[in-house]
Amino acid sequence: MSVVRLEECQQHIRAQLDGAVEFWLKYSHDAVHGGFFTCIGRDGNVYDELKYVWLQGRQVWMYCRLYRSMDRFHRPEILEAAKAGGAFLRKYARLSSSENQWKCAFCLTRDGKAIKVQRTIFSECFYIMAMDELSRVTGDKEMQLEAEQMMEQVIYWVREDSSGLGRLQLPGDVPTNSMAVPMMLLHLVQQLSEGRLEVGRKYAELGSWCVSQIHQHIQRDGTAILENVSAAGTELPGCLGRLQNPGHALEAGWFLLQYATGNDNKEIQRTAIEKFVELPFESGWDKDHGGLFYFLDVDGHCPTQLEWNMKLWWPHSEALIAFLMAYSQTKKPELLEKFLKVYDYTFSHFPDPKSGEWFGYLTQDGKVALDFKGGPFKGFFHVPRCLYMCECILDDLLAENP
Amino acid sequence: MSVVRLEECQQHIRAQLDGAVEFWLKYSHDAVHGGFFTCIGRDGNVYDELKYVWLQGRQVWMYCRLYRSMDRFHRPEILEAAKAGGAFLRKYARLSSSENQWKCAFCLTRDGKAIKVQRTIFSECFYIMAMDELSRVTGDKEMQLEAEQMMEQVIYWVREDSSGLGRLQLPGDVPTNSMAVPMMLLHLVQQLSEGRLEVGRKYAELGSWCVSQIHQHIQRDGTAILENVSAAGTELPGCLGRLQNPGHALEAGWFLLQYATGNDNKEIQRTAIEKFVELPFESGWDKDHGGLFYFLDVDGHCPTQLEWNMKLWWPHSEALIAFLMAYSQTKKPELLEKFLKVYDYTFSHFPDPKSGEWFGYLTQDGKVALDFKGGPFKGFFHVPRCLYMCECILDDLLAENP
Repeated sequence: MSVVRLEECQQHIRAQLDGAVEFWLKYSHDAVHGGFFTCIGRDGNVYDELKYVWLQGRQVWMYCRLYRSMDRFHRPEILEAAKAGGAFLRKYARLSSSENQWKCAFCLTRDGKAIKVQRTIFSECFYIMAMDELSRVTGDKEMQLEAEQMMEQVIYWVREDSSGLGRLQLPGDVPTNSMAVPMMLLHLVQQLSEGRLEVGRKYAELGSWCVSQIHQHIQRDGTAILENVSAAGTELPGCLGRLQNPGHALEAGWFLLQYATGNDNKEIQRTAIEKFVELPFESGWDKDHGGLFYFLDVDGHCPTQLEWNMKLWWPHSEALIAFLMAYSQTKKPELLEKFLKVYDYTFSHFPDPKSGEWFGYLTQDGKVALDFKGGPFKGFFHVPRCLYMCECILDDLLAENP
Repeated sequence: MSVVRLEECQQHIRAQLDGAVEFWLKYSHDAVHGGFFTCIGRDGNVYDELKYVWLQGRQVWMYCRLYRSMDRFHRPEILEAAKAGGAFLRKYARLSSSENQWKCAFCLTRDGKAIKVQRTIFSECFYIMAMDELSRVTGDKEMQLEAEQMMEQVIYWVREDSSGLGRLQLPGDVPTNSMAVPMMLLHLVQQLSEGRLEVGRKYAELGSWCVSQIHQHIQRDGTAILENVSAAGTELPGCLGRLQNPGHALEAGWFLLQYATGNDNKEIQRTAIEKFVELPFESGWDKDHGGLFYFLDVDGHCPTQLEWNMKLWWPHSEALIAFLMAYSQTKKPELLEKFLKVYDYTFSHFPDPKSGEWFGYLTQDGKVALDFKGGPFKGFFHVPRCLYMCECILDDLLAENP
């Protein structure tokens, strides 16, 4: 593969990242209440003022990460917006009822009133990501402490007692290992431990547990990644058990690759690439139209999710990171070829040449199905994180091959 | 319009109904545990054994209604299956916790263990429909009493205090009038009151209240039906307030038409046709590809529902009933023309010529997107109810014009 092609990719990705940052700086800030609008139409119009806590936390995290690690984004306006987002989250995200001081809302009104709560850990997890990263750029120790305290609560919900999440205990609702949970926790372990040896030691066992929980999703004699397995690591009956989410598996793949590097573990690296990167790409890639399916059934039944065959931006973002990281660690040319295959599909389908940023939702045959740039689940996160990580990896690769 | 065309429709609809009944009789019965499989693949294979309470109740209701009102379905096997479904519901659907004896699960394992509960009234409503209709064919007074007792509970949740549904009280979660609730209650009033003067009197005020609640959804100076309005009947902010669901409005239309006939109210009839039948058809019909959109935004923003532009079977089923009923009450030729327009789209797209029954989910341009015949939300209900009601109306129309 020519260095010229990699340089082209690098330049294009760099320009795309600049464009994405400008788009969200321009359109998403709420100057009145702090925090971010995320329901943003094709041309930048705010079509709904609701504030989704996942996306508030993710945007704070992303701004801080860019501010902290890329010179051209070390700009006061980015830091100020991140701080305003962090202040909004701290003021309004937590429900703080008497019996449960850490539970966060899922969705707030523009001025911070809770509308909806999910009985899961993810609002809290993105709150932790935001607070930890923000504390790294502001040096605010109290904020860091808050992130770690909430982390303790999340770990308790996952490993000790989930009743604080508010779910009914039902006789048919058996304990399940959903891939999202150990993935998210592993990502938080990596976030909180970065550059902090003591925290790293504290969470070493948790990280190792998360890796083994993720590995439980390798099923069918190693031929498939299944999204949900039993708590004992066996296949669940029905649609739930047969569900595949290729983008999610690919995201888990690069989380594992980061973990493998950090722990110098070649076995985890090999499993990550073979099982969580190559396998989901093989099963998830649409041979007819290109692009990654959103959901599949491992036995080939039609999934019951209405959007199963749509092409979403984020699985492609995750695939780009996964293949480029896998290539950078192994230098196997077939991994770079796959990266370029995903790259070509992604950049010829998702970016909006007219108004910037990416469309998020395409039909199976690659037409824009929903034309907004942000919504309840698409904010300033998967696009810039992908571009930021790929730019960094390409910088390193090109520095090795001047 | 020629009588010949109506006769063709009637014959075709009759054959389609026969086919649908045979499909579900053949593939959906659980001979071991009672109740019905509803996750049924294209060719009749059961791809998941979960039992969704909405669909259990609906199938019991539909079997009983066909058994009771159409000679050719007055068959012992249909009655037996309905009874087995009713017994399954009575044995397993209710959670019967100490503080809440009427709350039903949303989803059960094959052998009846609760997996999931919704914080809404709909499982309970379909339970009521099932028990009332079943009591009419079996003469079981205890079952009828149970239906009426649960009805009282549902009314209490809707009009007095919803806390028994298990929702958190959140400061930003303002009381909302969602069209589904008064529609469902109105439908139950009609179900429970049929042929029972005393029950009719008991629920007369409730029926009238439901009609006024449904009328609150006429917004924008009478130019649009909105799916969610405030409890005071004003437009809500954001996507939630701007949401349109044309199929749902059309379904409300024929509920109102039935009510108008029962109460000999021409004003409600006129509003039903102009606002709930013609208006949603105008806004909801896809001028490019034909068929009714699933969701729309009244201001033309892109809806945030990923499936907004898909063509689902049930809005078309409801539109067929609504236009044919509106025509039968008014004899206005433009209403019959619209019926035939929906008829042509429906029967050229949804039925599966290979294995019978209808596909449920098409892409915007009319291709099959999900190829199963039953799933978590598609059971033995909208297809046979539409065919049954249209056959009855066509019988009456043709009897008037021999």
